[in-house]
Order: sequence, then structure tokens, then C-alpha cells
Amino acid sequence: MKKIFEPKNAIYLLPAVLVSCCSNSGTDNIITIAWTTNICRKPPCLGIVINGEKYSAKLIKDTREFVLNIPSAEILKEVDICGQIHGDSVDKFKLANFTRDDAVLVKPKLIKECPINMECRVKEAVMIEDSHLFIGEVLKVHMDENLFDSSGKINYLKLNPILYGDKSYWSIKDKIEYRGFTQKNIINIQ
Amino acid sequence: MKKIFEPKNAIYLLPAVLVSCCSNSGTDNIITIAWTTNICRKPPCLGIVINGEKYSAKLIKDTREFVLNIPSAEILKEVDICGQIHGDSVDKFKLANFTRDDAVLVKPKLIKECPINMECRVKEAVMIEDSHLFIGEVLKVHMDENLFDSSGKINYLKLNPILYGDKSYWSIKDKIEYRGFTQKNIINIQ
Repeated sequence: MKKIFEPKNAIYLLPAVLVSCCSNSGTDNIITIAWTTNICRKPPCLGIVINGEKYSAKLIKDTREFVLNIPSAEILKEVDICGQIHGDSVDKFKLANFTRDDAVLVKPKLIKECPINMECRVKEAVMIEDSHLFIGEVLKVHMDENLFDSSGKINYLKLNPILYGDKSYWSIKDKIEYRGFTQKNIINIQ
Repeated sequence: MKKIFEPKNAIYLLPAVLVSCCSNSGTDNIITIAWTTNICRKPPCLGIVINGEKYSAKLIKDTREFVLNIPSAEILKEVDICGQIHGDSVDKFKLANFTRDDAVLVKPKLIKECPINMECRVKEAVMIEDSHLFIGEVLKVHMDENLFDSSGKINYLKLNPILYGDKSYWSIKDKIEYRGFTQKNIINIQ
């Protein structure tokens, strides 16, 4: 039986990621978010949602650049730390013991300890009430060579991404199936 | 060591969900997507990304309503089927053997077999190249009573959501930690 609830945010388990950004003068920050998605293939674009009151939202509005860093569960402690403290009062790279790596095309730093970093430039910013949705064009992608298996495909169990929902962090288990595994059956049905 | 790649969509493992929609005359459709996220808390809003060429994008542009249905891995076969066939040529409810349930406030039908359904009305539509990002205000949420544990919290292992990335479906494993588990340590550091 289903119950009807009043409106709430019920997309559960989105990827926990770290967004690095900086001011025009170069002071940087890191924010942990989970409200993010791919948006467009050509050119590759992604969206990140940050509350407009946050220091990081102000930085990204000013510079229109950010780096989306995908962490592994191995650094969950650092991911959690970056989500607990306001970045205008503390150096989060130092607090989380993260290493700054230079990006190729944008000013914000890559977090070296994250196996994937995406350099992004804001293409569009959409304000929905108190949320800022920054749609960034992906300019460069940095990926750890150890993520790939011998066939050149990403091994998600090596990536070991963190999922977040309802104030908890979750890990992934197994690949269940490949997309299109029902295709043969559909042809038979039709 | 990291390698630098040209731009690509590298947010891996987003939730596989089913979006139901319909034409003004009531003909309905279902599309499987994974590019989705929560966007705003007050009022609760979410975003779904659909290629502008898709039949479902046209329907949602016309009616400005949709239902986001969250499936369990138990119905992965049906989820895959809805992502394989174009909806303008076939009745996907019939093809996937899904049951239509009436929504309270919108015209598109709920998929009964999905444990969570969110009735949404489009608040804003953003076009990024060939992608349509529909930002929908969540008007009602329907949730299966069996998802909750005795304390009234959602049990994600009962929800058993499907994650999608790189043409594969994945399942979740365990809760690793709660948000803020490092807080005590941070206070000590500061």
C-alpha cells in the first residue's frame, strides 16, 4: 500500500562529490554536494546545485569556473569534513589534508586525492528560489589510470563512488546487468 | 598517475528512474532516464534531462507535467524495456506490463509497480544544446509503506534503487556512515 506525502525531495542516493572553486584573487574553497547530474552530451555539460547563501555559490557566480572532483569511499572522512564547515572561515584543503593540483584551463584547483576531476566553465546559471543551479561545460577530464581495467573500461568497483541520501553515505555493490539486456526479448514480444 | 581526457560526461552512477508523461489528449508514455537530481528544497523541485528529439520531451513541453517514478532493482527488466523502444510507436505500460494509477494533481499516470512516485509540474525548462532540462515542482509524493523501517525512516535496502552509468546498471551495498560523522574530530582540530 502507498501513502501520499506532501512535497519533498525524494530522489534518494545521488553521488557525493566535491566542488572546488576560488575567488578572483585566488582564495579557494571546497564544498561537498550530492545534487548534481550530467546535462548535455555535445558539448559535455553537467549541473551542480548549491544554496545561494553558500560561500561557494558566490565564488562561482564571480569567476564562472569550478572543478567537480569525484571522490572514492576511501576518502569519505575528508568528504564529510568538507561538508561540515563554512569555507569562508577555514582552508578546507588544509583541514581535509588535500593536495592542490593545477587545472589546465580553469583557475580553481583539482583535488589530487580524487580519482576523477572535471574542469568546468559555467555556461548558464539558473536560480530556483534559494538554489543556484550552475550548468558547467566540461573542458577537461582528469582520471586516475588505476580506474581502468585491461579492456580500457572504467571499473566502478575501483572507483568505489560514494552515494548520498537522507543524511547517510552509501556504497555500491555489483553490476547487475548491461543496458539493453532485454532487447532480444522485446523483439520477440513485438 | 592521472591521464587527461577530452571533455566527456563523467558523472558516473546516477539513479535510473522512469518518467511518465502524456499528451493533452491523454496518450501516455514512459521514458527511462538517469540524468536527474534534486534542485530545490522550498518548494521541493527536481530536474530531469531528456533529449529534445524524444517523444517524451515533446509531451512534457506541451503539458508541462510529468511523474518521476523510482523503481527497485526487482523490476530492472521493465526499466530496461522502457529505455529501449520509442514511445510514439508502442504502449510502454502494456509492453512493460505496468499498471496505471491515477495521480492526485497531474494528468500523467503513476507507475504502480514503482515504490516511489512524484507528481511534478514544470516550473522552468532550460534548453542546453540538444538537451531539455525540465525543472519540476514536486506536488505530491507517493511512497510504499513497506519502504519504511519501524523508526519511520526509509530503508534503502528495501528500496533497492538502480544506479546507471556507462551503459550498465548497478545496485547499492551498505550504508557506510552518517553525514557529520567527522564532526567531533573537526571540533578537536579547530
